[in-house]
Amino acid sequence: MSDINAVLARIDGNLDASLKRLFEFLAIPSISTDSAYRAECRRAAQWAADQLAGIGFQARVADTAGHPMVVAHRKPAGAARHVLFYGHYDVQPPDPLDLWKTPPFEPRLEEGPRGRQIVGRGSSDDKGQLSTFLEAARAWIEATGELPVAVTILLEGEEESGSPSLKPFFDAHKDELKADLALVCDTGMWDASTPAVTTRLRGLVGEEVTVTTAGRDLHSGMYGGPALNPIKVLANLLATLHTADGRVAIPGFYEGVEELPEAIAAQWRGLGFDEKGFLGEAGLGVAAGEEGRSVLEKIWARPTCEINGITGGYTGEGFKTVIPAQASAKISFRLVGGQDPIRIREAFRAFLSGQLPEGAKIGFREHGASAALELPADSPALALAAAGLREEWNREPILMGSGGSIPIVGAFKRDLGMDTLLIGFALDDDRIHSPNEKYELTSFHKGTRSWARILARLAQWR
Amino acid sequence: MSDINAVLARIDGNLDASLKRLFEFLAIPSISTDSAYRAECRRAAQWAADQLAGIGFQARVADTAGHPMVVAHRKPAGAARHVLFYGHYDVQPPDPLDLWKTPPFEPRLEEGPRGRQIVGRGSSDDKGQLSTFLEAARAWIEATGELPVAVTILLEGEEESGSPSLKPFFDAHKDELKADLALVCDTGMWDASTPAVTTRLRGLVGEEVTVTTAGRDLHSGMYGGPALNPIKVLANLLATLHTADGRVAIPGFYEGVEELPEAIAAQWRGLGFDEKGFLGEAGLGVAAGEEGRSVLEKIWARPTCEINGITGGYTGEGFKTVIPAQASAKISFRLVGGQDPIRIREAFRAFLSGQLPEGAKIGFREHGASAALELPADSPALALAAAGLREEWNREPILMGSGGSIPIVGAFKRDLGMDTLLIGFALDDDRIHSPNEKYELTSFHKGTRSWARILARLAQWR
Repeated sequence: MSDINAVLARIDGNLDASLKRLFEFLAIPSISTDSAYRAECRRAAQWAADQLAGIGFQARVADTAGHPMVVAHRKPAGAARHVLFYGHYDVQPPDPLDLWKTPPFEPRLEEGPRGRQIVGRGSSDDKGQLSTFLEAARAWIEATGELPVAVTILLEGEEESGSPSLKPFFDAHKDELKADLALVCDTGMWDASTPAVTTRLRGLVGEEVTVTTAGRDLHSGMYGGPALNPIKVLANLLATLHTADGRVAIPGFYEGVEELPEAIAAQWRGLGFDEKGFLGEAGLGVAAGEEGRSVLEKIWARPTCEINGITGGYTGEGFKTVIPAQASAKISFRLVGGQDPIRIREAFRAFLSGQLPEGAKIGFREHGASAALELPADSPALALAAAGLREEWNREPILMGSGGSIPIVGAFKRDLGMDTLLIGFALDDDRIHSPNEKYELTSFHKGTRSWARILARLAQWR
Repeated sequence: MSDINAVLARIDGNLDASLKRLFEFLAIPSISTDSAYRAECRRAAQWAADQLAGIGFQARVADTAGHPMVVAHRKPAGAARHVLFYGHYDVQPPDPLDLWKTPPFEPRLEEGPRGRQIVGRGSSDDKGQLSTFLEAARAWIEATGELPVAVTILLEGEEESGSPSLKPFFDAHKDELKADLALVCDTGMWDASTPAVTTRLRGLVGEEVTVTTAGRDLHSGMYGGPALNPIKVLANLLATLHTADGRVAIPGFYEGVEELPEAIAAQWRGLGFDEKGFLGEAGLGVAAGEEGRSVLEKIWARPTCEINGITGGYTGEGFKTVIPAQASAKISFRLVGGQDPIRIREAFRAFLSGQLPEGAKIGFREHGASAALELPADSPALALAAAGLREEWNREPILMGSGGSIPIVGAFKRDLGMDTLLIGFALDDDRIHSPNEKYELTSFHKGTRSWARILARLAQWR
């Protein structure tokens, strides 16, 4: 029996033991956003480190200003390649509790529409997902005595609260964390039978703009007419951010944005994506944004400018005839391709400042900036991982985009030159962040098998 | 000695007694906004009713759902005319207390830059001002045995908290309150030596508009692109409310708005109003609004459209990449001349609704509507009152506007056909609503004399 077949057989034969370990992990309420669960977060980190130590990793729980990191290494002599696996052991709060059919931290198996599924907080996001990788590594070690590639594991405990400690920890441990490739298991399949690699992540620039026109709030009876109204000035400015056909109107905004390669465009067209269903589920009536582009393209491959918040004047019950001294808005840009976040920020500020009427002042505050990430279509690691997925699922993996942003993946690329393979087995109906979160047993089992195959394939990377 | 000269002599000779009465009134902390002072409000009402009964008025304290009204009548047999005087016995809270040089409810005289001044909460707004009328009536009765016109007095105790009981009380007592003319002493002089009649009050229409695009708040990574952003839709709509030259762009908005009569315009031009100083005090850099009009004209005689509040999405500290389901704004219109508030409301709603993009819903909520008020330039009562003021101050009274709105004055006109003369002796530096509120002794003394003369003049109204 070849190595990989022995590993797969070990996974199949030990599924119950794997599940038992996952249930232990899920039973720890490692809620990072609630300080009452501080000790539980540490307990989850320690549990993961102990598991890794138990299969021969050099593992430790490393303190940070917030919840600790788990760092573990197993580097076989002569391994040609080295991968860094990132996941998170913290989970979302389970509220509202009364909508759970069974307690969120008492995991169980239940029969679902597609077969058995694991129910509990974190079953999918991210304890279940990251366990597919840990179980694959365990199976390799237990079946063959060694991993096919060197593996470093980094698990954080603050992903659900904005990862405040991750970048500082990464910066302080770059040498230790450097590898040939990063792997992340926190994304989804295309559907229950079609695997996917997320090869595009949009970048993000956050800005807060404040318009000030007066020294204090004014009464609209006393001053209405000659007083410049900052809400009106702000509305006028925000109205100029897009053209009538839905494009962003800031000069230079589309520099670095390229049209989708035809091969990708064709794959996406072939997905039969239900635009109407997707929009309807969110209560959206029609597709907005850039004319002449599909919904998937808009989310996965096009940049945006969104107003995420606005406030000014009196916003309580009833009415006050105030002309406020200032008004402000939070605005973000999702970036794609080669768009430079710093240039986008500067172009945005110049665009608004250049339109400011006499008598108004404008101030800006930054809220982060990260470039888009795109795994090159000809990446050898991508081809090898896709082969592993194809072997397991007998389907061509979809090269998806993601509208969201994962800042640490940008840091992997920028600071260490590491590309990241985002491969996960979650399904859209896993109810992550919601009551009765679940993970299909198939996702867990075949996900583990998929990682085993991918690790085997990556050992062939020259 | 003519009647009026006897009355004026009585006022001059009894100034100390008048002041003593005012100080008693000022010593009652009738703060309407604070329920802890409920009994003090009633005490102030009772004090005023007792004073009026003491000079022969049929006076009563009338209960309402809130603080009581004072209603008093004295109708001489054969009086040709009947006036209704309105004022308010409640005062603003004195906070911040530590900025008062002496306790707010221990009134005193002090030497000010223009002579002696009465210091204490309510000294100007409105106990001092309404006392000028009460003292004038008292002097008429004490010097001549009778008033020259029939007088009804209505004092409320909720003006500083939005007058919730006034309109219901007025509606229930219209027959009792009906007169030929209403008098209000709650406005100001043009300057310390120039009297004024406020002949224009702007109307007010309040609207709240809500734009809804989705069934729930969305993540801008997941939905940014195809999701219509309600803040953006709202900003686009609000940006269309004005033209580039500062006019309101709603079709039909200026129907009923007339240019200022040249005589009034000339009087206002001659006032030497310090636009720069007025704007600068509020921290405003330049005059905004309609091009080619003076600041006074903009406030006193031109309609406006203001955004008084806006809210949508995430407005707390930091940043959230949300695309909210809805956004809303509070918008008000100040009206002048013959603008119809109902037609303005309808035109506004039609204007925004007509521009709504596909996929957005819009909702409106009304927050009041009152027409502008303008005392006709040829009003006989105005001419008579102006003559009385001219006699007292040896200056031509200024026919001012007020940017604000006084809803009860609209009800006087609409429901009873009564015009209102708004005449007061406050000065811009009286610090009403602020610590160390004052009223010049000259305002009190010559204000009382002014009302004595105005009552004499109104007796000549045929």
